[in-house]
Amino acid sequence: MATQFFSKRNLQFLLYEVFDAESLTKYPYYQDHARETFDMVLDSAEQIAEKMLKPLLTEMDRKEPQLVDGKIRIHEGMRNIIKKFGDDGWINAGFSYEEGGQQIPSTVLNSAAFIFQAANYSSSVFPFLTTGAANLLRSFGSKELQEIYIPNMYAGIWQGTMALTEPDAGSSLSDITTTAEPTDSDAECRPGVYKIKGQKIYISAGDHDMCENVIHLMLAKIKGGPAGAKGISLFVVPQKRIKETGGGSNGINTTNIENQTSNIEHRILEDNDVLTAGVYHKMGYKGAPIAHLMVGSNDNTLGYLVGEPHKGLTYMFQMMNEARIGVGMNAAAIGTAAYYASLEYAKERPQGRVISDKDISKPQTQIIRHADVKRMLLFQKAVVEGSLALLTQCGLYADLAHVTEGEEREYYHLLLDLLTPIAKSYPSEMCCLSTSAAVQILGGAGYTTDFPVEQFYREARIHPIHEGTTGIHGLDLLGRKIIIKNGKSLQLFFEELMKTIEQASEYESLKPFAEKLRKYLEKSAGITQHLLSLAAADLEVFLSDATLYLELFGIVTIAWQWLVQGIKAQEKLATAQGDDVNFYQGKLATMRYFYEYELVKIDGLARRLMSSDNVTVEMQSEWF
Amino acid sequence: MATQFFSKRNLQFLLYEVFDAESLTKYPYYQDHARETFDMVLDSAEQIAEKMLKPLLTEMDRKEPQLVDGKIRIHEGMRNIIKKFGDDGWINAGFSYEEGGQQIPSTVLNSAAFIFQAANYSSSVFPFLTTGAANLLRSFGSKELQEIYIPNMYAGIWQGTMALTEPDAGSSLSDITTTAEPTDSDAECRPGVYKIKGQKIYISAGDHDMCENVIHLMLAKIKGGPAGAKGISLFVVPQKRIKETGGGSNGINTTNIENQTSNIEHRILEDNDVLTAGVYHKMGYKGAPIAHLMVGSNDNTLGYLVGEPHKGLTYMFQMMNEARIGVGMNAAAIGTAAYYASLEYAKERPQGRVISDKDISKPQTQIIRHADVKRMLLFQKAVVEGSLALLTQCGLYADLAHVTEGEEREYYHLLLDLLTPIAKSYPSEMCCLSTSAAVQILGGAGYTTDFPVEQFYREARIHPIHEGTTGIHGLDLLGRKIIIKNGKSLQLFFEELMKTIEQASEYESLKPFAEKLRKYLEKSAGITQHLLSLAAADLEVFLSDATLYLELFGIVTIAWQWLVQGIKAQEKLATAQGDDVNFYQGKLATMRYFYEYELVKIDGLARRLMSSDNVTVEMQSEWF
Repeated sequence: MATQFFSKRNLQFLLYEVFDAESLTKYPYYQDHARETFDMVLDSAEQIAEKMLKPLLTEMDRKEPQLVDGKIRIHEGMRNIIKKFGDDGWINAGFSYEEGGQQIPSTVLNSAAFIFQAANYSSSVFPFLTTGAANLLRSFGSKELQEIYIPNMYAGIWQGTMALTEPDAGSSLSDITTTAEPTDSDAECRPGVYKIKGQKIYISAGDHDMCENVIHLMLAKIKGGPAGAKGISLFVVPQKRIKETGGGSNGINTTNIENQTSNIEHRILEDNDVLTAGVYHKMGYKGAPIAHLMVGSNDNTLGYLVGEPHKGLTYMFQMMNEARIGVGMNAAAIGTAAYYASLEYAKERPQGRVISDKDISKPQTQIIRHADVKRMLLFQKAVVEGSLALLTQCGLYADLAHVTEGEEREYYHLLLDLLTPIAKSYPSEMCCLSTSAAVQILGGAGYTTDFPVEQFYREARIHPIHEGTTGIHGLDLLGRKIIIKNGKSLQLFFEELMKTIEQASEYESLKPFAEKLRKYLEKSAGITQHLLSLAAADLEVFLSDATLYLELFGIVTIAWQWLVQGIKAQEKLATAQGDDVNFYQGKLATMRYFYEYELVKIDGLARRLMSSDNVTVEMQSEWF
Repeated sequence: MATQFFSKRNLQFLLYEVFDAESLTKYPYYQDHARETFDMVLDSAEQIAEKMLKPLLTEMDRKEPQLVDGKIRIHEGMRNIIKKFGDDGWINAGFSYEEGGQQIPSTVLNSAAFIFQAANYSSSVFPFLTTGAANLLRSFGSKELQEIYIPNMYAGIWQGTMALTEPDAGSSLSDITTTAEPTDSDAECRPGVYKIKGQKIYISAGDHDMCENVIHLMLAKIKGGPAGAKGISLFVVPQKRIKETGGGSNGINTTNIENQTSNIEHRILEDNDVLTAGVYHKMGYKGAPIAHLMVGSNDNTLGYLVGEPHKGLTYMFQMMNEARIGVGMNAAAIGTAAYYASLEYAKERPQGRVISDKDISKPQTQIIRHADVKRMLLFQKAVVEGSLALLTQCGLYADLAHVTEGEEREYYHLLLDLLTPIAKSYPSEMCCLSTSAAVQILGGAGYTTDFPVEQFYREARIHPIHEGTTGIHGLDLLGRKIIIKNGKSLQLFFEELMKTIEQASEYESLKPFAEKLRKYLEKSAGITQHLLSLAAADLEVFLSDATLYLELFGIVTIAWQWLVQGIKAQEKLATAQGDDVNFYQGKLATMRYFYEYELVKIDGLARRLMSSDNVTVEMQSEWF
């Protein structure tokens, strides 16, 4: 088993040298913090990852969750892990003091999440799903709903989920058919309480035996509401609901809760008719239970409306946008673990001889000395560290949007909004390839279960699928993000890149990279204009290569992030000593790799995107 | 489970319309055959594939081989399959009548193998490994060895293997340490009989309980021989050897064998000290047992020298070259099965609406109507049918080399030799991506074990590794193949492409494609010259991007194969009727796809290959 699974040094480089996360502490919301707090968060994450998560990596893959008597049984080791996340306050660490949180910036929490994910992806998803669900309740739920559900979620006693997908509505959420019928008309007449009926599939952590209750944040359509996406509402649908003991006007006991984590002791739970119909067996990510749920089969599921009717999709998108950054991070984390596993192997494994000295009487050389192996390592390093830089950048934008106002806030929002499809898709797509490079470096050994890289390869493959497929994000970017507010997001993005380009141009050694990025940025701007010019005539043609446009945009974005890192590395190298010299040299070499091998891929993409042959649009089903 | 797993129509198109396999029957060696024989071969293959192999696809993946009491237990269903392959003469179908074969051309047999592989890759490898081993014995073994071993191998009673890899010698065969000590000095003094000692790993079908004996064609070094590759010899090392019953001069009873398949009845087998130390558990390709063997642990393994001492690697390369074409075919076959599984799903699965009509009151559309899904289907079709065309072309070259002489023979040999690394690597690398596209089309469903695409994705990943990694083939192409005989192979290849370009230029509609191919061919020639110019100054720099050069060469080659197919489709379309119209339209559209989306990737590769930044060479281990 590989020893190293992430680089603390690289996290520190990004947080403190490149993005200056400490500067957040000048805002009142973060003023209690300092680098010391941030370091403590990372150290705690590393300890948990090293001692609790990583030891279960292989075992959780081998012992898949099983559905037994209607309940999903997961790995027993998750009990302590979930408890630990609850006890140590990880689930609500980012929330405000008033909500029991610690006001830790996303920039830092995402880095901690990255450490968990790199150690054992499956085990890391439980608390973060709960955070996402609790976050929705915090933002849009009534005070009553918050008081009932959030404390036990924070404590890790209740699991949170995001229940969107249905058998006939995966990427097309407007077609969900789960219904919600008001109980207002009942004798009991309870506003906000609905009877829910339908099926939900692919629900991560949708049921398991290491929690007392599962709180689904579920999309459903209120009967009689508008068709399509405009008729989707958001509900809290608990697996077990609070038993009515009489007296409460809306079936919810609103007694003040003194001790939040013991909330449950004051209430009695009863079954809410949410049945687990199945658990999915899958290629990877096996430790996490993905459930198929039957809701209201016995006409006895109650759901509690979150916010206003028909606004469910808007609310859900808040969670989805966070989740999308989270997915990008998951992918980058798995890619990072695979990178270090293959790096370790490449440093230790002797095989063959360097091309300049084939003398067979000499011992074999470590494979890390072969240029092709170095290329595959550089590829991985470029992808995972480039992705992590972008994701850290996005975390910073989110934090800054949180603590600023007016135009400044909009500025960060617009950039984050534009970059979200990239931050989700680039790591997701590219870490499928980077984990593949890790397998390749190990050769036959990499294909066996004796090494972890084959598991990373399998686990990486989920990310281009969940939280919106890559195709969906392509449509989101080209069909929506670059045109909202008259293209203001895109303009801000270009300005950001130009700033970096100018900054880099001040270093003689970085000028060629700045020039290349400028050239490719201009090329990309030209392509964008060309594509937009097609929109009026034929929307289908305009969007037909949206996935390729997303790919191109991703490459430009990561090239930018590498130049940002290159500037800092170049600056620091002047006075660096010891290991730091190697660290900064590595950064500069990886930037070079990216510009030599990855950025140039735009040439081919550009030629295609500027072409007028609409073969994918014109292709007929019967020709396949 | 998907119904279709390959296209008979496409095989017929390639065999009879594009490559005219019937023309082989004008050579005396193949004169007994006609299209009818070839069709019968394909029909028989389809029947076996459909009825015996495909039904076990999933089950063989789920029930992995296990090592029990020193023996590898495989799926019980393989008993009938192996017997069937032996009984029906598949193992030696390509061999001459004198050898009990049927003189079926490789072009046709490879197509049959493709059908088996597409149905169930793991199950298909057993007979073909035996064929390869028998082929080595036929070519280089003594008459005695042939008589002892080959009949039972042909009959499927004895399994053949190729035992090369060792723990410390994977890609670097010159470093094997398995030793062979002559027994000449023994009292018994038997020439050609050696004591073998060592370890072999990753031996496909290296041991299993559905055969009576395993015949390893094993590389070892005769003690006192030259160092490195020049000291490697080839041995037959049976798992069980023929017990000496006295009288035979060399321990081998050479009584004439009347009934080949009952050869075994006349002899008594005894243990040859080849221990199965382990069976590898792996990401995919799980139905086939991959063994770790300990040879001569008790100093009691006898190996029988094949051919002359120290020529083992040369001999083995015959088998490896065939095996490399075979690996390309395996990859293309798995990619094909994944393509049809995702095509079927795309035709049936409703999701979302076409961009030109988003009316949510209308039912959802089948996803095959979305341009991005069509792009992913076209990508798969382009990769798998382009690969299959190249592999059929290679089969034809092999057959023609077999039946021609002198210059003509050399011509086919040189082309086949040059194309082998491409025919192995392009399908292997690209079918990892094409099976990934299949998974993506199914979305969440594709990631679950409810559909076969995740298995295809896992199985495809072995191919860039075995029979020489992609990196090794890059070195083979750039460092050897394009320079042998003063670049004559490369020159012949260019001439072949120019012939196709000229032919295509006669069709108005194909002219733009011919022009594009000409342009990219010229670009490739320029890159080749540029790289060769680096060789004298720095061999390491020259070869550092050999893998990218291989990728570029692969794209040009497949573009050529698509133009070859496009010419035929265009020609036939004029008079085609019914389904054939769709078939040829599909070919032309896929050619368009390849030229629009794949060929242009050369732009990026070219920019990199022409660059003078040697970052992968200069990168230092400690910078990672």
